[in-house]
Amino acid sequence: MSEHLVVIGADATGMSAASQARRRRGPEQLRITAFERGGFSSYSACGIPYWVGGEVAERDALVARTPEEHRSRGIDLRMGTEVTEIDLDRGRVRTRELDGGAEAWTGFDQLVVATGAEPIRPSLPGFDAPGVHGVQTLDDGAELLATLERDCHRAVVVGGGYIGVEMAEAMVRRGLQVTLVLRSAEPMPTLDPDMGKLVRVAMEGMGIEVVPGAEALEVLLGPDGRPREVATTAGQYPADVVVLGLGVRPRTGLARQAGLPLGASGGLRTTPEMRVSGVDGVWAGGDCVEVLNLVSGGYQNIALGTHANKHGLVIGTNIGGGRATFPGVVGTAVSKVCSLEIARTGLGEREATAAGAAWESAVIESTSRAGYYPGAALMTVKMIAERDSGRLLGVQIVGREGAAKRVDVAAVALTAGMTVDQVVSLDLGYAPPFSPVWDPVLVAARKLAGRVG
Amino acid sequence: MSEHLVVIGADATGMSAASQARRRRGPEQLRITAFERGGFSSYSACGIPYWVGGEVAERDALVARTPEEHRSRGIDLRMGTEVTEIDLDRGRVRTRELDGGAEAWTGFDQLVVATGAEPIRPSLPGFDAPGVHGVQTLDDGAELLATLERDCHRAVVVGGGYIGVEMAEAMVRRGLQVTLVLRSAEPMPTLDPDMGKLVRVAMEGMGIEVVPGAEALEVLLGPDGRPREVATTAGQYPADVVVLGLGVRPRTGLARQAGLPLGASGGLRTTPEMRVSGVDGVWAGGDCVEVLNLVSGGYQNIALGTHANKHGLVIGTNIGGGRATFPGVVGTAVSKVCSLEIARTGLGEREATAAGAAWESAVIESTSRAGYYPGAALMTVKMIAERDSGRLLGVQIVGREGAAKRVDVAAVALTAGMTVDQVVSLDLGYAPPFSPVWDPVLVAARKLAGRVG
Repeated sequence: MSEHLVVIGADATGMSAASQARRRRGPEQLRITAFERGGFSSYSACGIPYWVGGEVAERDALVARTPEEHRSRGIDLRMGTEVTEIDLDRGRVRTRELDGGAEAWTGFDQLVVATGAEPIRPSLPGFDAPGVHGVQTLDDGAELLATLERDCHRAVVVGGGYIGVEMAEAMVRRGLQVTLVLRSAEPMPTLDPDMGKLVRVAMEGMGIEVVPGAEALEVLLGPDGRPREVATTAGQYPADVVVLGLGVRPRTGLARQAGLPLGASGGLRTTPEMRVSGVDGVWAGGDCVEVLNLVSGGYQNIALGTHANKHGLVIGTNIGGGRATFPGVVGTAVSKVCSLEIARTGLGEREATAAGAAWESAVIESTSRAGYYPGAALMTVKMIAERDSGRLLGVQIVGREGAAKRVDVAAVALTAGMTVDQVVSLDLGYAPPFSPVWDPVLVAARKLAGRVG
Repeated sequence: MSEHLVVIGADATGMSAASQARRRRGPEQLRITAFERGGFSSYSACGIPYWVGGEVAERDALVARTPEEHRSRGIDLRMGTEVTEIDLDRGRVRTRELDGGAEAWTGFDQLVVATGAEPIRPSLPGFDAPGVHGVQTLDDGAELLATLERDCHRAVVVGGGYIGVEMAEAMVRRGLQVTLVLRSAEPMPTLDPDMGKLVRVAMEGMGIEVVPGAEALEVLLGPDGRPREVATTAGQYPADVVVLGLGVRPRTGLARQAGLPLGASGGLRTTPEMRVSGVDGVWAGGDCVEVLNLVSGGYQNIALGTHANKHGLVIGTNIGGGRATFPGVVGTAVSKVCSLEIARTGLGEREATAAGAAWESAVIESTSRAGYYPGAALMTVKMIAERDSGRLLGVQIVGREGAAKRVDVAAVALTAGMTVDQVVSLDLGYAPPFSPVWDPVLVAARKLAGRVG
């Protein structure tokens, strides 16, 4: 008698888990059913800003694997079907077809909760009007593009994090005049303010109006019921379209009802095997769980496709009879706004203080290639380390071509628990077209090494 | 009474050491004299191929710091002055001015041997003719450029390593028809042959004629005493100019005469502090020493500016009263030929076997950005790991934009002694313009993880 695996949510975690379990166990051993309430499977939400911005021409390019492809691999994927209840005692889920409303119970031996995240949408007047758009799903993207087909000249983007900054770029690329309204003092609040300031100055240089320290209060509508202006604590800004980039929170309503354990971050608690803590046969991963930060030792919720895919691989391997773990994250994130690249990993100053560390930091400017080599582009690198031990705590990079992915060096060094002295000695690739003789990350480590240990 | 530091060789190691010692100790505490037999200080030999190729317009762009700049910082730099003998017993060096021949003895308390490397030049007929060029010094570069001003149409480059491949590109950029003659089966013998083959195929696609498995025998000269043809074991190839890229060996004649200890690699043996082993007050670094390979545990000589600079920093710190060490290398190297990027770190298959490891390898193809993002470029990643432990042993990457510096992730992971399972879990930067959701290095680790441990 074969086991039955039920998956809730058919994006990165859910379908990676299903696919990996299927690779390891054939249909005669493992039956797999996946429920997805939306209309797409395995798509790249991270790609939506580039589709809206026009770099990616077709929505379907963002779909890594269609429902048909999954089905051809022996996964019974039910689209447009919402799971409305998890019954742990009887090992079953209740589903409802969005088209028609038919309800049913489905039993499971193993369950994967991959319900993802939901965008934060303020309950303020006007924010539910047509012309006010989130960018969480492919349908969101299509609706925003439909709005842009209208006579749009001015966009207000609300929120200064990754999505806000990327959507500001997308609106610029669409030829709109853009205002970015953000609560924090500088864009990219996951950077320290001195590094965020570099992002603001660059964005202003691109013609984007940046309004920091402002709360949106209301979307004022025109006679057509569409945005006319956004009222904020810092003033009113005309808008034909409003884009929300206020971040997301884990979608855990189902899990909460079922009594599954949630952490302080709001995400599901799991073991390193991505099993829901204390619950046999139930697994969770992706945007709806919390993960260990290997640098701070704390738990946090991070909505990022790369983690979601790794979680799915770990879950699928374990369900498939193998053994895999997800040890945690170091908080790496990269982004860009037009030609400005932005990266961070580990802890920023505020996070380092919150983690109880006494720290020092250093900021340097260097180039992506040897200074004399054509195309050498400036970047600013900030490095933070523990004062006494010299242990690396975090790195932030803002610059042009070649800046963002340099943060990977620091991500690996953080994972290994290296000191800045050890970073100075790293044998990184050097040739004039690729790096100065001292890579910018090493230059920062050299400077910081003189202040710690 | 102040100490006297004498430095032999005014390039990366020598002048980094002098500058760092000067930063830590003023002229009243430390007198610094540096002898350089050539005409340039602190220049980038690695940049010569790009100057010859025309990407770098001016020779002087390759000079990081001129003799005058060093002198203004309190370093008595004597150009055109060769050290002809080290007298360890009496703590002095004998010098000879190349212009005039005046000889003198100079006493030292501390000595830095930074004599660099010398190019390998076969003692075969015709190889000392005008029109046959090494590319080790700025003078070499100027002479090659002077030859190219003549009526040159065909170049033969002898040697298939970094210099050979980079000089082949430079000749292509100068509009010449290029033949690359190499001893090994594929270019870039520091890569495994399957990866070197990708380089050959790409070079052939650029119109470069690649002649593998061939020894150069003679440069046949025309009536003007300049190259007409290169005779090899694989046939004869017309040439108006011949470029030698046969590698270098440590320049240790002086050190050998003085009885300083040399390793099997031919380089000077040093402690991690870069003190010459067993000899107080004498330091050495750069292309004339051997370094510990942290992966194999063996010693090797590596002529690379990035190591030379680090050695100089370590030496200068220690002479200046601080404490620094150079722990070793992992064998990272990056290069390119036109738009093809080439990188390696750690051990190749042959080196892994020589180090006594039982290993497995995996090769994957992926892209530099999300597949749907414009500019996503193909790369091939090969990863090697120890069969039983799963410990990472080496990575090689050949591809287009964004390929080379990805090797840094592996370099740090090798330094930390990570397993491929640990590599799979690394929290690398992900956003569609910068990486697929699984970075290519992680894709290789995923594939290899299934074969080891």
